[in-house]
Amino acid sequence: MQLNGHQLIGQESFAARGKPIYAINPATGERIEPGYGGCGIEEVDRACQLAWTVFDKYRETTLTARADFLEEIAAQIEAIGDELIERAMLETGLPRARLEGERGRTCGQLRLFSKVVRAGEWLDVRIDPELPERSPLPRSDLRQRRIALGPVAVFGASNFPLAFSVAGGDTASALAAGCPVIVKAHSAHPGTSELVGRAVQKAIATCELPSGVFSLLYGAGNELGQALVTDPRIQAVGFTGSRSGGTALMQAANNRPQPIPVYAEMSSINPVVLMPAALEARAEALGKDFIASLNMGAGQFCTNPGLILSIKSAALDRFKMAAAEDVRKSAPQTMLTPGIHSAYSSGLLQLRETGKVQEIAASNLVGDSKNLCHTTLFAVNAEDFISDERLHAEVFGSCALIIECENMADLKKVLEHLEGQLTATVHMLDADYAAVEGLLPTLERKAGRILANAWPTGVEVCDAMVHGGPWPASSDGRSTSVGTAAIHRFLRPVCYQGIPQTLLPDALRDGNPLGVSRLVNGTRE
Amino acid sequence: MQLNGHQLIGQESFAARGKPIYAINPATGERIEPGYGGCGIEEVDRACQLAWTVFDKYRETTLTARADFLEEIAAQIEAIGDELIERAMLETGLPRARLEGERGRTCGQLRLFSKVVRAGEWLDVRIDPELPERSPLPRSDLRQRRIALGPVAVFGASNFPLAFSVAGGDTASALAAGCPVIVKAHSAHPGTSELVGRAVQKAIATCELPSGVFSLLYGAGNELGQALVTDPRIQAVGFTGSRSGGTALMQAANNRPQPIPVYAEMSSINPVVLMPAALEARAEALGKDFIASLNMGAGQFCTNPGLILSIKSAALDRFKMAAAEDVRKSAPQTMLTPGIHSAYSSGLLQLRETGKVQEIAASNLVGDSKNLCHTTLFAVNAEDFISDERLHAEVFGSCALIIECENMADLKKVLEHLEGQLTATVHMLDADYAAVEGLLPTLERKAGRILANAWPTGVEVCDAMVHGGPWPASSDGRSTSVGTAAIHRFLRPVCYQGIPQTLLPDALRDGNPLGVSRLVNGTRE
Repeated sequence: MQLNGHQLIGQESFAARGKPIYAINPATGERIEPGYGGCGIEEVDRACQLAWTVFDKYRETTLTARADFLEEIAAQIEAIGDELIERAMLETGLPRARLEGERGRTCGQLRLFSKVVRAGEWLDVRIDPELPERSPLPRSDLRQRRIALGPVAVFGASNFPLAFSVAGGDTASALAAGCPVIVKAHSAHPGTSELVGRAVQKAIATCELPSGVFSLLYGAGNELGQALVTDPRIQAVGFTGSRSGGTALMQAANNRPQPIPVYAEMSSINPVVLMPAALEARAEALGKDFIASLNMGAGQFCTNPGLILSIKSAALDRFKMAAAEDVRKSAPQTMLTPGIHSAYSSGLLQLRETGKVQEIAASNLVGDSKNLCHTTLFAVNAEDFISDERLHAEVFGSCALIIECENMADLKKVLEHLEGQLTATVHMLDADYAAVEGLLPTLERKAGRILANAWPTGVEVCDAMVHGGPWPASSDGRSTSVGTAAIHRFLRPVCYQGIPQTLLPDALRDGNPLGVSRLVNGTRE
Repeated sequence: MQLNGHQLIGQESFAARGKPIYAINPATGERIEPGYGGCGIEEVDRACQLAWTVFDKYRETTLTARADFLEEIAAQIEAIGDELIERAMLETGLPRARLEGERGRTCGQLRLFSKVVRAGEWLDVRIDPELPERSPLPRSDLRQRRIALGPVAVFGASNFPLAFSVAGGDTASALAAGCPVIVKAHSAHPGTSELVGRAVQKAIATCELPSGVFSLLYGAGNELGQALVTDPRIQAVGFTGSRSGGTALMQAANNRPQPIPVYAEMSSINPVVLMPAALEARAEALGKDFIASLNMGAGQFCTNPGLILSIKSAALDRFKMAAAEDVRKSAPQTMLTPGIHSAYSSGLLQLRETGKVQEIAASNLVGDSKNLCHTTLFAVNAEDFISDERLHAEVFGSCALIIECENMADLKKVLEHLEGQLTATVHMLDADYAAVEGLLPTLERKAGRILANAWPTGVEVCDAMVHGGPWPASSDGRSTSVGTAAIHRFLRPVCYQGIPQTLLPDALRDGNPLGVSRLVNGTRE
């Protein structure tokens, strides 16, 4: 496919006149063609107007039509073939296997949402039939379903150029809910974005959906994002990225004449607790597994294990030794962008400057690429950690902190002082269960997902997944951005009272023509 | 019961030292004893600390224990007997029958949430069992349930001193979700609040729940509310009241270091569309029914029909004539507070001052009480309405505006210019259906509840009800403050990955010990 650096607005494609954005190969620092002209207010207006115009029609497409559309997007992404993987490798420095896996995940996710749409549980249908004889007052016929919120602005993330980008989780769940989507492409992978964007355009054409269900815009700086979020036709925002970026969007959304929800997945250091019996039995293996998880994707994962909590002991020393050995052996990996690499370096510097951390090990192997991430491991005592907020900040990359606690009470105190997290992990054996029971209430309050005897870096796309958590892990801890429950972010309930059958939406009609699960008179049918 | 003007903090009761608040009998202007000393930061801190301390325990009470508690609150409210009704009559000017009905509704609501808690659908249990043989990667065991957000601040409303106050819908749904509740009593009915607050305290004692699950605070001005909403232990807010009050709370909640959700039900003018065939057939009856609905509770209902939309015709003139006749016959009713009465007078004045409304009729009957609401009806043409925002503002009381449209396109244009609403109503006959179909997408976008051939003033408490709507009807159109779905406002999902059976919450264990509905492997069980 010839990449042309165009904005994709509805089914059209054209060059915008703003300062062009180029991808940078992070391994070489070289600029990659073509340039993507930055779009202005005019293009935002056009995309939003198109999305608004088709919204009523798109949200009422049949379950089948919408499910087919999601499957067609997956097929069109696969049809791009190796070109997609190669362009993504160039733009992100991520290795082939990782990107092929991510493509599989992205298409699998679209197909899962297709199933979700067909099953129709998300409609949350509730029917309270009329009770004309009820005394003192009769009850009217009341029926509830959920409908799409409206056009959604999605901000692609840098670290998952496929799974959290143009046709990633936010887009898939918003389209599944019946919302048109306008994506702001992440400037770090514009070519990958264009390829996927054109695949979505093709799926729209194949499925004969109206132009405007999807648009893809490019623009540097914050202006495009601000213009999108403050456009009155945009009704919700999906974002994965930094805390400063997420809070800026929230502020813009809250200051609108009509505030709108922002689903921002922002920062998390993902504490991992090593319980005494588990540590005693498996110190070396845990140390090795920890560094393997820490090094995944050069640590550029929202669920990267950035914090180890354990009680001082000989076993903890063995764990540290094993981890240190693997840190030193860690091959440096190319980071996603020069900006992320430089933020990683500043993050390490800031930790060191606190004067409170002890460096356990750092990889100093030489690599033949620019923007390399050198895995680094620190230790700190509980008291110092609690008292210094700088140690709580996420350092995006393969960097972690081991907190050495005096005892279990001390460890629990550290957990209570943590901000909200995407995940919290506990390594345990049977002998640890009683003590873990005492930690669980804290972990439940702090995290969206609690893991036992695993590492948080894998995020399964399924019904039960929660990828979200209390502030500041995400802007809205009541939601998840991964898994089928993500669709609920883009829906709102509408109640129909006494509406004649012929005017009711199919989901609510007598006889259940869609065959969806419904709560009728308080009973699940 | 001897009312003593005390704050209720946990199971204690004591006098606060701030400037006392007195209820005013709106019918006479007289002050009613006792005074309720306003509480300060210290009392807020104490109530929040207690709530926080008991939160983990209360949120994990068994479904049975929590359901029994809600039923016991209802029983204790009924046990107050006539004293509650008499005190509420004195403080609000509302008639006995209305308050007796409201008490029934309040207790019925608590009992409905008791059923909801027992059924456990709100847990939204999702289980994806492990797939150890899956290739290329095995899947871990993943289980999701919902847990309570944390302590909730509830702001009592003036217009429903029982159903939207101390033990009203917000409190019932938050307690059902497992959240401790701190109520800020509405200063217009402190005695009614104390009576209900003491009933909740008794229920806590009877059910042997810990002190701190519930507190009731009094205070004038905005200080108490701001202190509550900005306290770091408060995790959500329920509010029913004015737009300015709701947006102030939202702003405070958004500016916290950790923003929290505010569920504010604010303002709505509840458009009612009279379709041509229905109007032609039933103009006079519709006119009479309209005024009956408009006069309910002196128009002090969130769902008061403040806007009639119809097409100019002889039938519309007949409707206006019938309505005008009943407006003139409307007995003036005592409004809830002198402040509400004065806001009603200013609202009428502001409408008149636009110079764009034509007064159709006003009740000028004399009553023997202070703070009387005189029903008032205006007409305006569509163009003037659209162009003047002042005509879109809610005038809280028995005041309505008839918008006379040129044709159906004109009428639809007016609907598109409306802000978000709690309700939208259409009166129609079979001959109107085709035209109504063209309006429905707009109505769905604008309102939380759509009614056919009814009046919006009755709000059924059931599974299918939506009492909420797009901004500014409520702060969060994704939620409802009435009906069983209200419980979802106070919950968030937590995922448990690979957690051993003995450490899992009962809702998620193998064998489904709670017998709740669960989504297992994508199938509803």
